[in-house]
Amino acid sequence: MKNSGLTESQLFDILKEIKKKDTNYSRVLSAMCTHPHRIAVEAHMMFIESNMGDSGLFPGTNEMEHCVIDMLSDLMHGQGVHGHMTTGGTESNIQALRSMRNFSESSRPNVVVPESAHFSFDKIADVLRIEIRKASMDQEFKVDIESFESLIDENTVGLVGVAGSTEFGQIDPIEDISGLAVENSLPLHVDAAFGGFVIPFLKKDYSFDFSLDGVTSIALDPHKMGLGTIPAGVLLFRGEEYLSNLQTDTPYLTTQTQHSLTGTRSGGAVAATYAVMNYLGKDGYIEVVDYCMDLTEKLVEGSYRIGIEPLIEPVMNVVALRIPDADLVRKILREKYGWMVSITRDPRCLRLVMMPHLTIANLELFLQDLEKAVKDVDTGMDS
Amino acid sequence: MKNSGLTESQLFDILKEIKKKDTNYSRVLSAMCTHPHRIAVEAHMMFIESNMGDSGLFPGTNEMEHCVIDMLSDLMHGQGVHGHMTTGGTESNIQALRSMRNFSESSRPNVVVPESAHFSFDKIADVLRIEIRKASMDQEFKVDIESFESLIDENTVGLVGVAGSTEFGQIDPIEDISGLAVENSLPLHVDAAFGGFVIPFLKKDYSFDFSLDGVTSIALDPHKMGLGTIPAGVLLFRGEEYLSNLQTDTPYLTTQTQHSLTGTRSGGAVAATYAVMNYLGKDGYIEVVDYCMDLTEKLVEGSYRIGIEPLIEPVMNVVALRIPDADLVRKILREKYGWMVSITRDPRCLRLVMMPHLTIANLELFLQDLEKAVKDVDTGMDS
Repeated sequence: MKNSGLTESQLFDILKEIKKKDTNYSRVLSAMCTHPHRIAVEAHMMFIESNMGDSGLFPGTNEMEHCVIDMLSDLMHGQGVHGHMTTGGTESNIQALRSMRNFSESSRPNVVVPESAHFSFDKIADVLRIEIRKASMDQEFKVDIESFESLIDENTVGLVGVAGSTEFGQIDPIEDISGLAVENSLPLHVDAAFGGFVIPFLKKDYSFDFSLDGVTSIALDPHKMGLGTIPAGVLLFRGEEYLSNLQTDTPYLTTQTQHSLTGTRSGGAVAATYAVMNYLGKDGYIEVVDYCMDLTEKLVEGSYRIGIEPLIEPVMNVVALRIPDADLVRKILREKYGWMVSITRDPRCLRLVMMPHLTIANLELFLQDLEKAVKDVDTGMDS
Repeated sequence: MKNSGLTESQLFDILKEIKKKDTNYSRVLSAMCTHPHRIAVEAHMMFIESNMGDSGLFPGTNEMEHCVIDMLSDLMHGQGVHGHMTTGGTESNIQALRSMRNFSESSRPNVVVPESAHFSFDKIADVLRIEIRKASMDQEFKVDIESFESLIDENTVGLVGVAGSTEFGQIDPIEDISGLAVENSLPLHVDAAFGGFVIPFLKKDYSFDFSLDGVTSIALDPHKMGLGTIPAGVLLFRGEEYLSNLQTDTPYLTTQTQHSLTGTRSGGAVAATYAVMNYLGKDGYIEVVDYCMDLTEKLVEGSYRIGIEPLIEPVMNVVALRIPDADLVRKILREKYGWMVSITRDPRCLRLVMMPHLTIANLELFLQDLEKAVKDVDTGMDS
């Protein structure tokens, strides 16, 4: 740090140059975040200094957090749900698994998850010192329920299902997993960080939430398809008992106890979530999801036209395309054509997320470039 | 969530009403957060959609994060420091202790901390399943080094010192603790979440950072006295080896690995920190700290005038006042006079943080009300 500071105009000249290096998302097909809604941004601004870590000072923002929890509890068919906002899926998943672990006396606790679970579960295994057991996938890249059941033993402290997998956008058979949870008296966490703001707005119905008896917690992220601002995750627990074993005493604050993992928490992101949910309503989110599913359909059709097939028929706005040399095609798409795409782990497919920031015109451009990139690989033009 | 959304003007009418319920900080003497600097807010806005969890998409913001780490590394007299921004002190402390624990093979790891350590260490004990051993305080509410040493055993995986304790604003004898760390080959984490943006700008010098051989990590929070936006913490490690045992693989992102606890991370808060540090420079922070120390001096003088003594001569802008019936005085100050103050755990003193949002005029009003509140208690007027 220099002794004397920059002037305001010097500083903002620099910031403008730096900003140019960041993506504007127009050619990003790899991300599950997107532009926050302008209403979310405006609300974030209004409440930017609000701190949910000391919520007694901010009873207004605190009220908005409770409203968000209530609205999402309704959306997830819950009653008497307790929860709080987090920084996103990873923190929500840490907290859900911490709650499971804390209910148990096992000295070698394990949690069974599908192989398609987000990489953060590997992080969580380390943080919480629990074993993560990964059940294999079926042909449709849902978790194989027999494999899942076979991994449950006396040290299993909980189960995880994914509703909207990061790689395939697939929904696990949560109904079956819920049956296993009830049968074995185990808590079941549903990671719907991405799917939570998609599945309820799809034309087809899926059972994945508190309507299933076994589901005890759900993670869903407003800062993904909820169009909120970063950092905004939500963690919902079916009952207070799951939350209360995360309690820490908080002397010298306006509150007596705290259940969140982090201390200081962004009230701006709370206000943004509250605002965008109230502004869009269910109808607004249906429009957003309709648009993304329309893009998804166009992508799949366009891919078939150039001889590329999706790994599975897309359930939501995540598409995995079977392409030989997917890693190389990805590289060419980025370096030669400027598209950011990603790759699934197994099998290695091209992974594309059809987010609201993508225009139909850009999708068409992408399909043209995809065809060229595949040809580049075929003809060895990449070298 | 309703089916149809509110109009923009309906929504913002509601938000304006909600906002009135939140504090504007003018009568808050209990918080370690404050108004972020307007420059920080503006920069946050510019980069609000930036996500450090997928930093390959945001190379500009990523560059700013590296700059912040470098500037703070310099300020903390470090060389070859590695680190990242976090959501604040709690997350930084979790990560520092997780790194210590991961270095060790102990099946019953413990970490020695001063009794004055932030309550988040109790949370961390639960999250990481480590024992937190609390060393007692000396007369000046620094940790007692003999007590500290006596708690170290073969299962100790690391030590913690506090530079700017939440309750007393005291600085532990970090030099002595550093000696113990070197002697026992243990990592030493310094929690300077509050003090990190105060101590370097005080008139008096204190040794508490990487200039001491034993110090291996430091937490300091831009969103406290750094005048950044929430959520902004910083975690610095003396060398890469401390960070690398926090590594998780990140398939399907633009990066290969991740060291942070959270996934999606606010690029807005990174930009805000970068901006305010470059705008203020050291001279600017010296002005801020000068002002807060001036308030602190005035508070102590004013307290003496009404017969109230500080528990210790304040080291930084945190004051603990010895008052009989402190809890009752706190209640009266809040309910009758509208001041938010807090209480230390042991002994129960009135705890006051002199943040930049407090005006001298308001401090004088507070002192008048404090005198009245104490009299209210003496004369039983509170009942």
